[in-house]
Amino acid sequence: MATAKIDGDRFWATVMQQAEIGKGREGGLARVALSDTDRQVRDVFVRWCKEAGLTVSIDRMGSIFARRKGTDDSLPPVLFGSHLDSQVNGGRFDGPCGVVAGLEVMRALDDAGVATKRPLVLVNWTNEEGARFSPPMVASGVFAGAYQLDWGLARPSDEGPALGDELKRIGYAGSAPVGFPVDCYLELHIEQGPILDAEKVEVGVVTHGYTSYGFIVEIKGETAHTGPWPMEKRRNALMGAARLAVAIDDIGHAHAATAGKSTVARIVAWPNKAGILSDWGQITFDVRHDDPAVAERMAAAADAAIADAARKAKVEMKVIDRWHWGGQMFDAALVDLVRTTARRLGHSTRELPSQAGHDAYFMARVAPTAMIFTPCRGGITHNNGELTTRDEQVPGVRTLLEVVLARANR
Amino acid sequence: MATAKIDGDRFWATVMQQAEIGKGREGGLARVALSDTDRQVRDVFVRWCKEAGLTVSIDRMGSIFARRKGTDDSLPPVLFGSHLDSQVNGGRFDGPCGVVAGLEVMRALDDAGVATKRPLVLVNWTNEEGARFSPPMVASGVFAGAYQLDWGLARPSDEGPALGDELKRIGYAGSAPVGFPVDCYLELHIEQGPILDAEKVEVGVVTHGYTSYGFIVEIKGETAHTGPWPMEKRRNALMGAARLAVAIDDIGHAHAATAGKSTVARIVAWPNKAGILSDWGQITFDVRHDDPAVAERMAAAADAAIADAARKAKVEMKVIDRWHWGGQMFDAALVDLVRTTARRLGHSTRELPSQAGHDAYFMARVAPTAMIFTPCRGGITHNNGELTTRDEQVPGVRTLLEVVLARANR
Repeated sequence: MATAKIDGDRFWATVMQQAEIGKGREGGLARVALSDTDRQVRDVFVRWCKEAGLTVSIDRMGSIFARRKGTDDSLPPVLFGSHLDSQVNGGRFDGPCGVVAGLEVMRALDDAGVATKRPLVLVNWTNEEGARFSPPMVASGVFAGAYQLDWGLARPSDEGPALGDELKRIGYAGSAPVGFPVDCYLELHIEQGPILDAEKVEVGVVTHGYTSYGFIVEIKGETAHTGPWPMEKRRNALMGAARLAVAIDDIGHAHAATAGKSTVARIVAWPNKAGILSDWGQITFDVRHDDPAVAERMAAAADAAIADAARKAKVEMKVIDRWHWGGQMFDAALVDLVRTTARRLGHSTRELPSQAGHDAYFMARVAPTAMIFTPCRGGITHNNGELTTRDEQVPGVRTLLEVVLARANR
Repeated sequence: MATAKIDGDRFWATVMQQAEIGKGREGGLARVALSDTDRQVRDVFVRWCKEAGLTVSIDRMGSIFARRKGTDDSLPPVLFGSHLDSQVNGGRFDGPCGVVAGLEVMRALDDAGVATKRPLVLVNWTNEEGARFSPPMVASGVFAGAYQLDWGLARPSDEGPALGDELKRIGYAGSAPVGFPVDCYLELHIEQGPILDAEKVEVGVVTHGYTSYGFIVEIKGETAHTGPWPMEKRRNALMGAARLAVAIDDIGHAHAATAGKSTVARIVAWPNKAGILSDWGQITFDVRHDDPAVAERMAAAADAAIADAARKAKVEMKVIDRWHWGGQMFDAALVDLVRTTARRLGHSTRELPSQAGHDAYFMARVAPTAMIFTPCRGGITHNNGELTTRDEQVPGVRTLLEVVLARANR
């Protein structure tokens, strides 16, 4: 039996191949969840998995699982992967690097004829980004029992059709039950922050994720004429949204010194037309912080801001969705295994938290979980300018392979 | 020759007939300019005009002119009318009452076999509301020489296609030149304010219109991740729009004691999706005041607010459209004729300014102009709850007939 070895050129060629599907702006992707191009990349991914001898199954949330047998196949598998969906102005690497890294692990094992004691499963999670369906990471959330399956399938897209309907439309409404016992979960992902790039560190050892609270608030007002209707009688839903947006933004700025964040990402209103006040609106935002207690206070401040904006704009506001993730430390032993493995391979490492959301946060609720971060230039992400290279990714992929082997054979 | 007499029942039945086309919410209309339902109501209006023996022509801005010969047909005509387009959540009376009142004037003259010295022309102006194409009153603006024809035809709809393209699509891209000499312009319109209704006055004598400044501001930022990207580096176009919206709203509230107004009516952003900062936005708003000097100061405050919001949100802002109307007194003699005529007919009158925009503002630049206001319940308008009755409208229609006759025969 030979030693399994990552083929960096094959890995990178595959990353570039997936980046041909669902192109967005120059150099970027617009491959939002359950779109036609998401279906295309899923089809290609399934073909690659089958060519690698893996057994593919689709669960009811549409996540794709590609399984490689273990010598003791009844043991819970080592699960690893990421997501192939992108933002509307997304990059080529946010998600796909982790999925393709997992595929390269499988290919490398096959090349070397290496068997593992435990089975291995590579996953492509549905709707990690939340670009069409809120909340993000909804499929791993259902997998981990944080959300109910029916609720997950019923999530509406921004355009209307529910997640479950769109899964059927693209042919990925699978029949496998959502969730199964796993030995551990591993995810390689670009950092989406500037630290590794700035410090020229090869492998980021992720200790935990920020705590984030997401909100969708519905606003009800009254249409009226923009001219004669008195200012004091106005109930413009759009102004409710705008006043709340500013208050939410201010919460993030008030916590900027400790790298707290708040983001207003989406405002819609109706009729949203010149000449008339809007009587309906919706606003989507989140607050997040490294310290769960601070994040909770930021969320409480957001709740107070909702009440205050509603009062000032004389509109009704209702939180129609409120989600929460992160704040959990990753498994200490698994995190340590990532660090020692990377160092043994001769790679520089650095501990850091994740400020973005990842499916790993939900998996950490049900299994030992760790993440491997790889560099991305200037921390630019969710932007067509997102950039990394083969040589910046390969150290993380090599680390993933060795960590998978260590866990699968222990 | 009999005396021409308004048929109140016929007038009201016709108002109700047009209200069957392009229904919106319960009791309202959603008949936005150059939509399929705008075409339908135009077709019906043209048929009614032809049945009334009028000669119909369409100008290059799509406004419909229905002409009745005068005994000295070379004299400039008396022009009167209003608009048949509505807001997305519009009422049945805002605009159509004035058009149907004009039609009733024509019908009443025909019934009585009354000829006039000067020709009469009834007009339905294109896109008074501005609900799809900014600015509003663009066709009368071109008629009066305030805007260039090419510029008017190039106005983009919220959905993309230009006004000229949509005129062609619905078959109303006319060939008549825009603008011709007129003896005077008269417009009957519901007040869109609460005064006549509250004081039980039958005929509002409009002295002038508020001065209004409209703005469309384009915002450019940068997409980035809602998590790791530092607050201080963020250039979220959506937050630029929200910060500007609050500042604009505050300008109106600061002038509320003198009935000044400001309205943010529309915000759009891209991608406007959960998980990503927006790099593009657009905001449409206006400020208005009865005192032109105050309105000008409010517009200057808006300009300052644009610069301030751009700085705070670290985005670029550019005023891509800035329009201005009103502030001109209507023709004193014509206003006096409206008042004395209404009183002679036994109707109660009251002077008041118009706070809404009307095509009459542009016509006032090129011809003696006056408006007749009729009551509307509670001042509610641009809302499906807009309400008035036959008996509340007929005094205004009778006044319109007599004023038209007086002007046409002088």
